[in-house]
Parts: sequence; structure tokens; C-alpha cells
Amino acid sequence: MADQAKELHKLVERYRIADGKRFRLKHCDPADTHHLDAEDKPRSKTLLSSSVSLLAELQDKLFAQDRKSLLLVFQAMDAAGKDGTIKHVMSGVNPAGVQVSSFKAPSAEELDHDYLWRAWRALPERGRIGIFNRSYYEEVLVVRVHPSILQGQKLPPTSLTKHIFRDRLRDIAHFEDYLSRNGTQVLKFFLHVSRDEQKRRFLERIEQPEKNWKFAAGDVKERGHWDDYMAAYEDAIRSTATEANPWFVVPADNKWFTRLVVVGAVVQALEQMNLAYPTVTAAQRQELQTARALLEAEATAPPARPGKRR
Amino acid sequence: MADQAKELHKLVERYRIADGKRFRLKHCDPADTHHLDAEDKPRSKTLLSSSVSLLAELQDKLFAQDRKSLLLVFQAMDAAGKDGTIKHVMSGVNPAGVQVSSFKAPSAEELDHDYLWRAWRALPERGRIGIFNRSYYEEVLVVRVHPSILQGQKLPPTSLTKHIFRDRLRDIAHFEDYLSRNGTQVLKFFLHVSRDEQKRRFLERIEQPEKNWKFAAGDVKERGHWDDYMAAYEDAIRSTATEANPWFVVPADNKWFTRLVVVGAVVQALEQMNLAYPTVTAAQRQELQTARALLEAEATAPPARPGKRR
Repeated sequence: MADQAKELHKLVERYRIADGKRFRLKHCDPADTHHLDAEDKPRSKTLLSSSVSLLAELQDKLFAQDRKSLLLVFQAMDAAGKDGTIKHVMSGVNPAGVQVSSFKAPSAEELDHDYLWRAWRALPERGRIGIFNRSYYEEVLVVRVHPSILQGQKLPPTSLTKHIFRDRLRDIAHFEDYLSRNGTQVLKFFLHVSRDEQKRRFLERIEQPEKNWKFAAGDVKERGHWDDYMAAYEDAIRSTATEANPWFVVPADNKWFTRLVVVGAVVQALEQMNLAYPTVTAAQRQELQTARALLEAEATAPPARPGKRR
Repeated sequence: MADQAKELHKLVERYRIADGKRFRLKHCDPADTHHLDAEDKPRSKTLLSSSVSLLAELQDKLFAQDRKSLLLVFQAMDAAGKDGTIKHVMSGVNPAGVQVSSFKAPSAEELDHDYLWRAWRALPERGRIGIFNRSYYEEVLVVRVHPSILQGQKLPPTSLTKHIFRDRLRDIAHFEDYLSRNGTQVLKFFLHVSRDEQKRRFLERIEQPEKNWKFAAGDVKERGHWDDYMAAYEDAIRSTATEANPWFVVPADNKWFTRLVVVGAVVQALEQMNLAYPTVTAAQRQELQTARALLEAEATAPPARPGKRR
């Protein structure tokens, strides 16, 4: 178990970007599986399920302590495996301590506010893990690739400069810095799938009737902007990856490997929080003793047998 | 598996109240375990875990179909096991499809609205399972036992009559009827613990340091109002249990049995929804073929190898 934890930590470190300035996406291989290969898949499954159990334990402490929270942001091209990763990594955790939000195109009400407003409302409460399936990063990704979207955002004309995405990246870095100083650490995951693998998964969704419903025909068109998206991701990661709120650029051509890296990153972040169950103060201990005395003095209460109670 | 399902259904029927008028709490034994006993505990664990897996599958369909939703309301005296039941029944389900809300004493903002307002805001989206850990039923339980609370609720003086709780029960029945006609079925669980068992669990929380944090000294005082609470629960169940939105009065002196009945009730409700993955229309099938042609025509795209892409 200790060895497993060490192995996972080493794996995670390889994909952790804590200093954006030196990051280059071209050095990242979507098909990378470190030293693991298909033969390691059974072992990786064991590692995944033991890590999910560990995650459940840590989450229980996070919840009991009720001071810090963790926000997991998932960003990726379509079919990179966001939904499946969330499902496989987080099933097993008490849903009372997890809040998942999916961000689609903003509604009319949301467009009547600044672009971080809807994210702010969905932030996890203390003691919880929040999960953003897509996020405010779309404002510097899809909007950057399709800048005409800006026209519908009701922005003050003075903000619509050629620096708008640089400004937004600075806003986001400030927002996350603020959050981490106030108890919410932000871990950002870019599930890095290759263009070839995306094509393979799209074709699978078209060919397998039971996967048809997951496919939107418009998704194919977005592939035409692949390089623009990669440039936008690289710039987003370079501008917002910090020690406090790192990015993880997770190879996503192999789903089993993606899940392993993600669970490892979450476990590592929780372990570094030094979580512990709350302890009681001397005054509370006194209260507990008073309560015990009260309960024990109750012996004369009417017997609580059903049917005779009232 | 089919036998297990049948067994569970029979178990659930025993505790399902779909016609409130004939309900009497005194006929319910908190220590009841049907024909199961301590010797059946290992088998009950298998049954629980296979039911949780089945629940996860059904929830996946509910989510994909995105039409109906399920609201699970948990009410109970302290230490009856609400938190533990939610954890053990719902861990294993994809948290993207589950939303848990805990209702504490209303905030100043909430008191500036009608008493159903905060519940309404927390209702599950289509395709989701919502869980209320305590709920709007507190308005006819704790408030009924301590009617002085009404003074802080800023109600119109004309509503503060001696019929207020009868009126509220009617509001609640109407609210739930409305919800079920609009796609949200409401299942209500009263985890029925005995006064003796509650005392045993309180003493355990006091005696075991790692459980201390779960104990609030004020909880002991509420035991003094036990009979008033039971009367309020009985009236609430009698007034709001319907075929569409039933109550389950779940024996709660044995945690393993409580969990079994709850998971059975949730599985049964989902099974009766006739859930299915969405099918595609002829027009959508045409779109899929167009998308496939587009993808296949891409063969001339530059090879997507990392480092050479841009």
C-alpha cells in the first residue's frame, strides 16, 4: 500500500505543471503511459480501486473537518473522457461531500452577469469536493477560438480590446489565487487526447447504436480548429499553473491511464492538506460529561417499546 | 439476482406507506428485521452491494434519458443513521447524477421567503437523484414541537392560526403532487429508531473519542419531546403518503437492515420508471452518417503526432 502510494505520487509528478512559464504542450504525448503498458492494466485496475478507497477515506476527513475544500476543474476536447473519468474516479466517494457542476453555453440570466458569476455560485462548500465539468476556462478556450461569441456577452466596449484574453487569464489567475488563500484549492485537469484518438472515439459513437446518444454532429466541425484549441490550452496553462493551483496535463489516449493519474493527483492533494477529524475542547468535553449524566439519569423513563410508548 | 430483486421488493412493500389515512406509527417496530436476523447479516451485505451496483446502472439510464428525476427525503430523530444510510446506499453511484442538500436552521435570507423556497432551489435537475438530508418536513416536525419558532418566521398574522400545521401539511401534499406530475417523484424515508437505541448511540458518541465531534449536547434535550415528535411524524405521514409519493417507515435500530430497505425502495422506484437510453430519430441517424463521411474524408489531415502538430 505504501509502495503503491509512492508509485502513484511519482506518476502524478510527471504530469503536474506548477510553473506555467516553462510549459510547452508539444513536449506532452497523449499516448504516454509512463513505464506502464497494456500488460500492467490488471495491476492498474487494482491501483485505481485501492486509490478510490483511499480517496473516500480522505474525503470523509475533509468533510468532518469542514474547513478546506477542493475544486477539480476538468477541461478537454470532446470525447477525451471527462464524464467517464469523473464517474470512475469519484464513484465510491460519499456523494454528500461531492458537488458536480456541468457548464454549458451560458443562459440569458448568466450573460447578464460577469463571466465568473456562475462559477462562483457553484463553488464547493467547505469540507466538499467540487467538480467542474468544463468551467470558466471555456472563456479563454472556445471563446478565443471563436471570438465572435464575445459579441453576445454584453461586455463594456472598453473591455473588448485585443488584450481581452490576456486580461481574462489574469482574472482567472487572481480568482484562483484568492480561492486558495481562502480555503479552496483548485486542481485543473487537461485530459490531453490526440486528434487521431478523438476520431477513433467519434467513429465508435457513430457505429455503436448504444453510444449514438453521446454524439453531437457539431462536434466533428470543431476538429477543424484543433491547432487553435491546442494553442489556447497551452497559453491558458502557461498563464495559470501555479504551485498552489497546478494544472495536470493528463495523457488521455488510454482511459485506464487517465483515471490513474487523476485519482493520484486528487489523493496527493488531499494528503498534503493534513486532514484530521475534529478534536473536542475542554469545554466541549465538559458538555459531553453533562450529557452523559443526563442520559444515565433517564433510567426511570417509560420503557420505549413500540405500541406502548404513548 | 432475479430472486434477490424479488426478495428486496417484498421487503420494501412491508414498509411502504402509499395510503396515509390508515397509517399508525404504533404498529411499526423500530427493531423489526422482517424474517432476517443477525445470522443473515453476511447475506444482507451481499444483497446491499449488489443492489448498490444495480442502483448505479439505473441511475446511469436516468441521467442519459434526462427526463425524470427522483427526490429522496430523509427525516429522522438524531442518531437514527441518516448520514450513514446516504453514504452506504449512494456511494458507488456516479456523483455527477446525485445532488445532496442538508437543511439546517433557515438563514436570514431564507426566512425572508416562504418556507418551501429553499427546498425549491435545491430540487434535482432532470436526470438526477436529489437527496434532502432533513427537509421542508421540519416545518411540521421541529416547528410543531416548538411552535415558538413560528414567531421568527415573519409570517402574515392571518396565517398564524391554530390550523397552521394542517395547512402546511396540505401545502406539502400539493407541492409533492405538483412535482410528481412534472417529472420529479418524491420518496420520503422516516428512519424509525427507538428511544432506547438512540440513547445507546448517544452514549457511544460520548464514550468513543473519534465519535465525539458528531455529538451536540443539545441533542439530549430533544429526547424530552420524544412523544410529541412521534405524534408529529405520524400526522405528517398520514397527511402526505400517496401512491405517487409514498413514505417508507424504515426500522432503524439495525443499521444493516435500514440500508437494505432504503436501497430496495430506491431501486424499485427507478425500475418502475421504465428507464431506457435515448434512441436516435431518422433525422439524427442521417446526421450521424454525414458526420461519419466527414471524419473518413479527413484521411489527408496532417498526422497528429505530438510535437509535429503545429
